[in-house]
Amino acid sequence: MLITFLTDFGLEDDFVGVCHGVMRRIAPEVEVIDITHGIQPHGVLQGAIVLANTLPYLSEGVHLAVVDPGVGGDRRGIALRSGDGRLYVGPDNGLLVPAAEKLGGVDAAHEITNRKYALEPISATFHGRDIFSPAAAHLAQGLAIDDLGPAVEPDSLARIQIPKPDITDRRIRACCLYVDRFGNMQLNLTREQIMKLGIEPGTQVELELATERYYAIAARTFTDARGGEIILYEDAYENIAIAISGGSAAETLSAEPGADVRIRLAH
Amino acid sequence: MLITFLTDFGLEDDFVGVCHGVMRRIAPEVEVIDITHGIQPHGVLQGAIVLANTLPYLSEGVHLAVVDPGVGGDRRGIALRSGDGRLYVGPDNGLLVPAAEKLGGVDAAHEITNRKYALEPISATFHGRDIFSPAAAHLAQGLAIDDLGPAVEPDSLARIQIPKPDITDRRIRACCLYVDRFGNMQLNLTREQIMKLGIEPGTQVELELATERYYAIAARTFTDARGGEIILYEDAYENIAIAISGGSAAETLSAEPGADVRIRLAH
Amino acid sequence: MLITFLTDFGLEDDFVGVCHGVMRRIAPEVEVIDITHGIQPHGVLQGAIVLANTLPYLSEGVHLAVVDPGVGGDRRGIALRSGDGRLYVGPDNGLLVPAAEKLGGVDAAHEITNRKYALEPISATFHGRDIFSPAAAHLAQGLAIDDLGPAVEPDSLARIQIPKPDITDRRIRACCLYVDRFGNMQLNLTREQIMKLGIEPGTQVELELATERYYAIAARTFTDARGGEIILYEDAYENIAIAISGGSAAETLSAEPGADVRIRLAH
Repeated sequence: MLITFLTDFGLEDDFVGVCHGVMRRIAPEVEVIDITHGIQPHGVLQGAIVLANTLPYLSEGVHLAVVDPGVGGDRRGIALRSGDGRLYVGPDNGLLVPAAEKLGGVDAAHEITNRKYALEPISATFHGRDIFSPAAAHLAQGLAIDDLGPAVEPDSLARIQIPKPDITDRRIRACCLYVDRFGNMQLNLTREQIMKLGIEPGTQVELELATERYYAIAARTFTDARGGEIILYEDAYENIAIAISGGSAAETLSAEPGADVRIRLAH
Repeated sequence: MLITFLTDFGLEDDFVGVCHGVMRRIAPEVEVIDITHGIQPHGVLQGAIVLANTLPYLSEGVHLAVVDPGVGGDRRGIALRSGDGRLYVGPDNGLLVPAAEKLGGVDAAHEITNRKYALEPISATFHGRDIFSPAAAHLAQGLAIDDLGPAVEPDSLARIQIPKPDITDRRIRACCLYVDRFGNMQLNLTREQIMKLGIEPGTQVELELATERYYAIAARTFTDARGGEIILYEDAYENIAIAISGGSAAETLSAEPGADVRIRLAH
Repeated sequence: MLITFLTDFGLEDDFVGVCHGVMRRIAPEVEVIDITHGIQPHGVLQGAIVLANTLPYLSEGVHLAVVDPGVGGDRRGIALRSGDGRLYVGPDNGLLVPAAEKLGGVDAAHEITNRKYALEPISATFHGRDIFSPAAAHLAQGLAIDDLGPAVEPDSLARIQIPKPDITDRRIRACCLYVDRFGNMQLNLTREQIMKLGIEPGTQVELELATERYYAIAARTFTDARGGEIILYEDAYENIAIAISGGSAAETLSAEPGADVRIRLAH
């Protein structure tokens, strides 16, 4: 059984490597695929979005995710199972639930309390290494989820709010959820939502960020615009995003995750 | 069969991880080695150089490379085979050809058009995930290259120009191709070319970048110079490069890829 | 047998990927776990600390580590065996010894001189690829350590000094060894040492860095303090460290590795 691994640990330190080592020691035959370790430090919302976006492309397995600002405090460690049989391990802070809900819903939830499947001693600040990696490795080896600890009510799980856009007949007020390496800005919008304003490939739109206005064109892909032109497009995870052909939209528009983006038709 | 993987995707986002997941789903037994995902965004020339530099050190396999500013436009997706039997998958923008030419020449070239070996639906902006990773995984599983799509003329493949130095009896005008993590600056020069000016380990040379002049010494390795001294040396891929013993040449010389570097003997 | 791999190569370039390729070519069945490649360029001390911290969590194997500012000069390449049977490969500059001493002491030491187990030709600047990766791969395949070259006296190995804190009854003068991605500052201190001043969870302390003073609280984990509060805690490798609840201590305190940190009880 496959383990996938997503964190905000970065690759500069040993955090990811030591978790790989811990898992491999418990489950020498199990393969681990790193989804990414580049989630912004403490970016639970971003981690939850990336996990829900990517899992449909990955084989079923044990999906370990650790973005855990509350480590060592009273947030629970949890293992979930979704309707399609996938397993999830991580902190109970909302990180895992959007993926599980997308893939059949939370079918079972257990608090991870059984010390038998943790390292000894358990540090106060690195449960990724001491609790979550061992739990994921044991599940991948065939341990039953019930053995990790008592069942908890799915309704009691922490949930995070993905911000919703505000949409009228004439304009959309959206939010930048995420900026990628290429400076593309993922918004909390779908194609259906922008189509309600009549925006489709070829439409000219006006964007407002902070107090600046920009003209953009709705397009299918980067090469449908001239170099330097701002485009609004549906990205590979079916979110509406902003890019600049041959450049970085986030840099040109001085935008960061959380930025307010207003969209209307250009006259 | 091995797959090697090189991109400009970086590791901050999920791009690399999801491609690993897609390949693993199609070809669970196939091993994937990441050459690097740190090619500068859209750095087709840099990607082509790194691929050609590194492949001789890697086992024969399927060599997947994606640096793809034209994704979704009219550039073709291609699969190549080189004279030594290696297979290549990526965009037809010059990225793959220098490696294939170094390793026996382009023996076969096919456009990737067969939807049977792609994900469904195909996004407009992430062919790495939807077309190239699946194609590489199927080839690694033994699919014949012809099954991916029609043969194309090797002469019709896009090619990129690696800039050539301008060399006279008295000076060389070269170009910085690449700056590595240590600040070492790789030039478009070989040892044979600098030897024509009489430069060999121990020779004092004068470098000119922008309007600044620097003294440097030709050396075999970093420790052949005193700390802080600029050296000109043959790097591990047999290109001439500039380094600073115990420091970063690119920082000290304010140089970026593309920078013009003039070299002459010091008096 | 497992190979673990730690370097200062970063992941932007092909250095790590090509070493993986070289090892895989020699030892196709051997698994390689990356501990980290994010050691600061030329950070031999940091590399040595991270290696000694992490190995107890990793299966026994061949532990390849390359942080090698002296490459191509007269420093030796070495292979070690520690009392618990682990093998180590890397430069003789102090990088490997602290881990080996922690894990049973240096039981055997050999200079790597046998060209039969190196690539041909050997570059002057990339022994990671040409000497150390091949040596590690051959050891993982079962080669005896003696076959790599002549035995050397363990006493002759280069050693690095981990700076020691200066501790009186009333104050500690410590040093920041390492800053991680979250801005947490690892100090050269243990819990036993701070307990001598009477510092334990809940104690208020005064920190002095450069000429600035800060109030901090000794705590067990991040969530034991209010957001923005500076904490002194025992980290997951049992070193005393400084963090800021919900922030970056290194940024707020303008601290870098090597920074002097004075600690006393607050009045």
